[in-house]
Amino acid sequence: MENLDDLRESIDKIDRALILLLAERFRVTQQVGRYKWQHGLPAVDEAREQTQFERLGRLAQEGGLNPELIYKLYRLIIDEVVENHLELQRRLSQ
Amino acid sequence: MENLDDLRESIDKIDRALILLLAERFRVTQQVGRYKWQHGLPAVDEAREQTQFERLGRLAQEGGLNPELIYKLYRLIIDEVVENHLELQRRLSQ
Repeated sequence: MENLDDLRESIDKIDRALILLLAERFRVTQQVGRYKWQHGLPAVDEAREQTQFERLGRLAQEGGLNPELIYKLYRLIIDEVVENHLELQRRLSQ
Repeated sequence: MENLDDLRESIDKIDRALILLLAERFRVTQQVGRYKWQHGLPAVDEAREQTQFERLGRLAQEGGLNPELIYKLYRLIIDEVVENHLELQRRLSQ
């Protein structure tokens, strides 16, 4: 049995990795936003979103995670992505 | 400029990695929950939580992420952790 400090150090390392990955995810979605602007595509793609959520639910279950938690987390992430896309479109259209 | 399919494939790979990391995070927090139960510690540690949120805000800013988004994501994650701790305590106390 590890002690509490060791366990918390593991959690902190995982959190650092999670945030680095999220930062990378937002870098890629900014490229998506730019692509969408260049090709006149809307900021939201409901079919893609639905496919993503179905896949995320499967991945959550495979990982023993509560799918409802994953849906809530990704709702926040994807809403922020869409907000960024709209902001980018406003900026590039000026 | 990469095409949309390539960018979305990158996002899907990042999401897989994010969910694997989250699953690992919940495995470690389950160990924390067990430790807390064995040592009669409460499920919530407000001082630890505050330290975590301050650190998460710094990491978010370093990664160019919106700290408010990170706070919202971690509020959901930590609420789920606490719920799991309470559930574990109920189960182990029976």
